[in-house]
Amino acid sequence: MFFASDNTSGAAPEVMAALMAANEGYDTSYGADAAMARVTALVRGVLEAPEAAVYLVATGTAANALAIATHCQPWSAVFCHDQAHVVMDECGAPEFYSGAKLVLVPGAHGKMKPELLKDVLSRTGTSGVHGVQRGMLTITNVTEAGTVYTPAEVAALTAPARALGLPCHMDGARFANALAATGATPAEMTWKAGIDVLSFGGTKNGCLGVEAVVFFDPAKAWEFELRRKRGGHLFSKHRMLSAQFEAYLTDGLWLRLAGQANTMGNRLAQGLAGIAGVTQTHGVDANMMFPEWAAGGHAKLSDAGARYYSWGLPDGREGARLVTSWNTTAEHVDSFLAALAA
Amino acid sequence: MFFASDNTSGAAPEVMAALMAANEGYDTSYGADAAMARVTALVRGVLEAPEAAVYLVATGTAANALAIATHCQPWSAVFCHDQAHVVMDECGAPEFYSGAKLVLVPGAHGKMKPELLKDVLSRTGTSGVHGVQRGMLTITNVTEAGTVYTPAEVAALTAPARALGLPCHMDGARFANALAATGATPAEMTWKAGIDVLSFGGTKNGCLGVEAVVFFDPAKAWEFELRRKRGGHLFSKHRMLSAQFEAYLTDGLWLRLAGQANTMGNRLAQGLAGIAGVTQTHGVDANMMFPEWAAGGHAKLSDAGARYYSWGLPDGREGARLVTSWNTTAEHVDSFLAALAA
Amino acid sequence: MFFASDNTSGAAPEVMAALMAANEGYDTSYGADAAMARVTALVRGVLEAPEAAVYLVATGTAANALAIATHCQPWSAVFCHDQAHVVMDECGAPEFYSGAKLVLVPGAHGKMKPELLKDVLSRTGTSGVHGVQRGMLTITNVTEAGTVYTPAEVAALTAPARALGLPCHMDGARFANALAATGATPAEMTWKAGIDVLSFGGTKNGCLGVEAVVFFDPAKAWEFELRRKRGGHLFSKHRMLSAQFEAYLTDGLWLRLAGQANTMGNRLAQGLAGIAGVTQTHGVDANMMFPEWAAGGHAKLSDAGARYYSWGLPDGREGARLVTSWNTTAEHVDSFLAALAA
Amino acid sequence: MFFASDNTSGAAPEVMAALMAANEGYDTSYGADAAMARVTALVRGVLEAPEAAVYLVATGTAANALAIATHCQPWSAVFCHDQAHVVMDECGAPEFYSGAKLVLVPGAHGKMKPELLKDVLSRTGTSGVHGVQRGMLTITNVTEAGTVYTPAEVAALTAPARALGLPCHMDGARFANALAATGATPAEMTWKAGIDVLSFGGTKNGCLGVEAVVFFDPAKAWEFELRRKRGGHLFSKHRMLSAQFEAYLTDGLWLRLAGQANTMGNRLAQGLAGIAGVTQTHGVDANMMFPEWAAGGHAKLSDAGARYYSWGLPDGREGARLVTSWNTTAEHVDSFLAALAA
Repeated sequence: MFFASDNTSGAAPEVMAALMAANEGYDTSYGADAAMARVTALVRGVLEAPEAAVYLVATGTAANALAIATHCQPWSAVFCHDQAHVVMDECGAPEFYSGAKLVLVPGAHGKMKPELLKDVLSRTGTSGVHGVQRGMLTITNVTEAGTVYTPAEVAALTAPARALGLPCHMDGARFANALAATGATPAEMTWKAGIDVLSFGGTKNGCLGVEAVVFFDPAKAWEFELRRKRGGHLFSKHRMLSAQFEAYLTDGLWLRLAGQANTMGNRLAQGLAGIAGVTQTHGVDANMMFPEWAAGGHAKLSDAGARYYSWGLPDGREGARLVTSWNTTAEHVDSFLAALAA
Repeated sequence: MFFASDNTSGAAPEVMAALMAANEGYDTSYGADAAMARVTALVRGVLEAPEAAVYLVATGTAANALAIATHCQPWSAVFCHDQAHVVMDECGAPEFYSGAKLVLVPGAHGKMKPELLKDVLSRTGTSGVHGVQRGMLTITNVTEAGTVYTPAEVAALTAPARALGLPCHMDGARFANALAATGATPAEMTWKAGIDVLSFGGTKNGCLGVEAVVFFDPAKAWEFELRRKRGGHLFSKHRMLSAQFEAYLTDGLWLRLAGQANTMGNRLAQGLAGIAGVTQTHGVDANMMFPEWAAGGHAKLSDAGARYYSWGLPDGREGARLVTSWNTTAEHVDSFLAALAA
Repeated sequence: MFFASDNTSGAAPEVMAALMAANEGYDTSYGADAAMARVTALVRGVLEAPEAAVYLVATGTAANALAIATHCQPWSAVFCHDQAHVVMDECGAPEFYSGAKLVLVPGAHGKMKPELLKDVLSRTGTSGVHGVQRGMLTITNVTEAGTVYTPAEVAALTAPARALGLPCHMDGARFANALAATGATPAEMTWKAGIDVLSFGGTKNGCLGVEAVVFFDPAKAWEFELRRKRGGHLFSKHRMLSAQFEAYLTDGLWLRLAGQANTMGNRLAQGLAGIAGVTQTHGVDANMMFPEWAAGGHAKLSDAGARYYSWGLPDGREGARLVTSWNTTAEHVDSFLAALAA
Repeated sequence: MFFASDNTSGAAPEVMAALMAANEGYDTSYGADAAMARVTALVRGVLEAPEAAVYLVATGTAANALAIATHCQPWSAVFCHDQAHVVMDECGAPEFYSGAKLVLVPGAHGKMKPELLKDVLSRTGTSGVHGVQRGMLTITNVTEAGTVYTPAEVAALTAPARALGLPCHMDGARFANALAATGATPAEMTWKAGIDVLSFGGTKNGCLGVEAVVFFDPAKAWEFELRRKRGGHLFSKHRMLSAQFEAYLTDGLWLRLAGQANTMGNRLAQGLAGIAGVTQTHGVDANMMFPEWAAGGHAKLSDAGARYYSWGLPDGREGARLVTSWNTTAEHVDSFLAALAA
C-alpha cells in the first residue's frame, strides 16, 4: 500500500524490456543514437507537431529549469502559481539556470485564474529598467494540488501572456495523467492551447528516469542543446533515455499507465467519500489527492502498512497526500480504504 | 570493431541484471533507497575511507562540475591541465556551476608537471583583490591523452596545492582504468596522494550512466546535496543509479571490466607497434591511444568496418583516437590490426 | 517645488567642497587613500562599533546586492517585505549577485510584522534539499512606504531570524532619516537591534553618489572586497567616494541634512492634513509620504510647477508620492500646499 | 614624482568645475538628466556615429564586463590577449556578468597577432555542443604592455572575427592615449576598423570616475540598460557622471590631456634611453612603459621620492612600470631621470 508518490514505483515491464534490448551492442553516444530519431518521430506524432524539436533529460527539475532558461532572460519575470513545483520543490533550479525571478500568482486548489494572472501581468515590468521585465508563463498540469487544467483553462491563461508576447511553458511531469483526466489530446492540451514548450514527463508514469522537452517552435533548439550540455544533462550513453521514452510512447503505453493511475485515484477518492468524516482539501482530478480525516486514521493506516505523506491539523484532524501510480491495484486501494474505515 | 569511445558500449550484464532486480516493488525516492546505503558502504570500503560522503549522479560532467563548485568560490582559480576534459569537453559546465575561472597548466602528453604547476600557482592570486584567488586543483586520471598518473605523480601535484591550502579533485571518469594501469589501490591513488574529492566514474566502464562523487572529508556534504538538487541532478527513482553502482563495485566487477579494457588497449598498442610506420603520439598506459600511420590507413579500416575518431595530418599521414572498452575482445583488436596491416 | 525624489537634489555644499579638496594632488587608488582610513574611523565612531569593517560603493543597489550576497548562499531564502526596494526596484540585482531567492513577507504600510515573519520563517526550508534554505533577513528603514521602524520593532524582527542563526541586513538608503525620525542612535538602530550588516546611505541625503556597507563582524570583509571588485564596484580614484562620506559624517552634517528633510516632511504632512479631502495612505514618519486628494489636485500642482510622482485612483481621486530632501525649504512646502489648497 | 598609475592623479580642473556647476538645483535622476543628452550628442559627434547608443558607468571594469555580457552568451568564448586587463585585473568580472569563458591569445608586447588569433578561432567551437562556442573578440588599446594598436592592426584582428560573425569590443580605458599615439580619429580606431562596442575611458585621463560604453549599433541598447541596472551601475544622481564626460569631450579637453600624458611618456622614454643600462621591455607608444635598469635604481629613486610599481629581476637587474598622466610635468620627468642617472 504505497501511496507516497508515483516516483516510489519502479518502471513498467515494457520500459525495462526496452532498456535491456537497447543495451545490446554499440551505439553512437550523446543523443545521436538510432532510438532518439524514433523518439523524435513518436513525440511529433503524438503531439501532432511535425516540426517540434525534442530532447531528453533524466529529471523533471532539469527539464523545467532548462526549458525555462531557454525562454527567458536573467532579468525576466517567470509567472507561475505560488505553490508550483518550480517554486517549492526544485531548490531554486529555475533561477539557477535562468537567472530569472519567479513571480507568484496565488490561486485556490493549485490553479491560477486568468483574472489574477492578468492583474499580476499588468503590475509587472511597468517601472522601466528598475523592475524585472515580463518574461514567460509556466503552468503545471497536473497541478501540485492534484487538480487538472482543461485545455480551455490553459488557453485562458496563455492568452493574456501571449498577448504580451510571452512564451508559455507547461510543466507536464504528470502530463499523461492530465490527458487521461480530461480526455484531451496532447495537441489540444499544449500548442493548440498556446503552449510553446512542454516538459513531457515519463519518470512518474512508468519510466525509470526520463523526461522529454518539446519545443513546438524549433528556433531555440540549439540554445537548449548548449544549455543541456553545460548543465551536465547530456547523457553519453543516451540510448538509456531514448529506449525508455520510445517504449513509453509505443502502442499507447503511456496513456494506459496513466489511465490505470487515474482510475485507481478515482477509486480511492470514491471510497474515501464513502467513509464518514473524510473530506478532500482540493478536487480530485487525476492520481493525487489531499484528504483529511478524524484523529486516529494515521495510526490505523500505519498499522496496516500504508505509506504516504501525513501530517496533523490544528483542529486535531489529520491530513494526507495520497498518490496512485501506474502499478497501483484495486486491491491496494481497497485495503487502504478498509484499514481507514476499520 | 568499435573503438570510438568506451561510451559507445552498453552496460555489463551484471549491471543490467541489478537494474532489473532493483526495479521490482516500491522504494524510497531521492537517494534514500536501501541500495544507496549499500553503495556508500561499498565505496567507503573500496577507498578505505570509512568517513567518506558518497553521492551518485548520472553524468561525468555533473560529477565534475558539482564537485568543483562545492570546493571553490566564484572568484577562485581552478588549476587544471590545459587539455583537461573540464576545459575542453564540458561546454563551460564547471564555470556555470562554480563561477570560477579555469587557470590552465600546459604539459606534454596530457599531464601536468609539478614545476610548471608551481609556477602557475605562484603567479596567481598575487595582486590582491584585482585577480582571481587561488582556489583548487583538479587532476584528470586517466588523462585526455590516454596517459596515467601514478600515485606518486598525483602526490607531487597535490603537494604544492595543499601547501597553499587548496583542495584537490580527481576527475576519475576512467578511474578504474587508471588503477588497472598502475596497480595502485584506490586509496593510494586518492586520499593517500592528497585528493580531497573524487569523481568516481562508472559510465565509461560498464555502467549505463552513473558516477559517484566521493568526499573524503564529509564537511561539505550538505552543500553538495543542495547543489545537486539545484542542478537538477537528484534522481527521484534514485535506485536506478544505486543499483548500477552497487553491481559495479560488487565482487570486483569494476576492476575486471577495466582490466579487460586495458588488456585490450595493450594488445592493440603492441600490435600497432608491430606495423611499419605506425607511431604513437602519447604513451599508451590504459585503454586509449592516439596512433598515427601512413596515408591509406583510414580507408582500409573503414572498409573493414572499424569505427573511431580519425583525422588527416599536415604531412599527409593520418591520426586516430582509439579507445578499447570492457567488452572489446581480442578478436576485435586483431581484426583491426589485420585490416590496417593489410 | 521638487518632490519627486530625494535623488533629484544635488549634493550639499560641504560634500562638494570636500570633493574639490580631495581632488588635489596624487593619492593611492582602489580604496587605500588616506581619506578612507578616516571614513572607517568616523563610521566606527558613529556606530559605536570599533571592530566594524567599512566599505564604500556608489549606488544603493550595489550596497544592498553586495551585502546580501556576502551573507547568504545561492540556495538561500532572503526574507524581506514584499514591497521592499530590493524586490521592486533593483531589477533583480540581489538575485544576480547572490543567486538567492527573495521570499516575501507581506505587511501593511511597508512594514513586516514579527508574527507574519515568523510564519514565513517556519514554512521555509522544511522540505530538506527540495526547497531553498533559510538564509538571511533584510529590513528596509525608512521603508518604501515612508514609514519607519523603531529599534524595538527592528529587534522584534531580527530576534526570530537570529534565533535560527540567520544574519540580518538593514537597507538604510534613508538611514539618517530613520534616525532623525526616531531619535535612536545609530547603534541602537543597528547592532543593538540585531543588525549584522548595514547599507548606510549617503546619496539620497546630500551626497552625490556614495553608500557605505558596514559589517559589524568583520569576518566576511575579505569576501566583500572580492565581490565588490568582481562586480565592478571598486573605484580606482576611490577618494571621490571617501571624500563625500567623510564630509557627510563630519560635524553631524548627515543628521542635520536628514533633520531638515524630515522637518520639511512633517511640515508638508501637517499642511496636507489641513486641506479638506486630503488623506494619507500610510503614516508619515520621515521625508516621504503617499497622500491622496480629490480630482483636480494634480492639475493645480502641475500648473504651479510642482514635480512629483502622480497617478489616478479608481474612484476618481488622485494619488501622489512626495519626497522632501535636505534642500527642501519651508517656502517650497508652503507653495506646494498653497497650490493644492487653491 | 608619481608614476604609479594614471589613476593616482585627480581630475582636471575643467571636469571638477563642471561637476560643481552640475550640482546646482534639481535634475532628473537615473540617466534622464539634461547633460546626458548632450553627452550622447558629443560622443556621437566625436565618433562620427550618429546612431550610436551611449551609456555612462563609473568604472572601467563595469564598462568592460557589461559591454562583453551584452554581446555574448554564457556558453561563449571571448577571445582576448592573455595579459589583457579583463583577464588579469578584473577578478573575473567579465565572467561574472556574462558567464562566458575568456579564451586567451598569446602575443608579444601585449598585442595579439592576426595569425595566432586566427589559429585560436579555428580551434574553438569545433566540437559541437561539447565545447564553448565562438562568441566575441575584445581588444585592449592602449594594451597592458603600454603598446598601441594602429587602426590597421585593429582591423586585421577584427576581420577574421567578423568573418565568423563575431562582434568586436575595444577596451579603451586609455582610448584617448591610443588616439594621441597614433593620430587616428576616433572613428578610424573603432567602427571603421571593425569595432562594434567601445569602452571609452575617462577616469584614467582626467576624470574622477566615468567611462562611456558606446554601441555603434543600438540594437542591444535596452539589454545593456537592464544589465547596467541589474549590476547596480545605474546612478540615481546620474548628472555626476554626465557632467564629467561632457566636460571631458568639450573643446577637445580629452585629447589635450592625453596628449600631455603621452608627451611626458615620450620625454621619459627618451630620457631613459639616454641612461646607460636602461632598457625597455616593450615598445613605448603612449604613457606607460616597463623599463629595466641595473641594481640600485630603485633605491635612488625611492630616496628621491619617486612612486611607481617596482620589482627585482632574476638576473639582479630591476624592473618597473612607469605611467605618466595628464598632470605629469616636464619637471616631474626630469627629476625622475636625474635621480636614476645620479
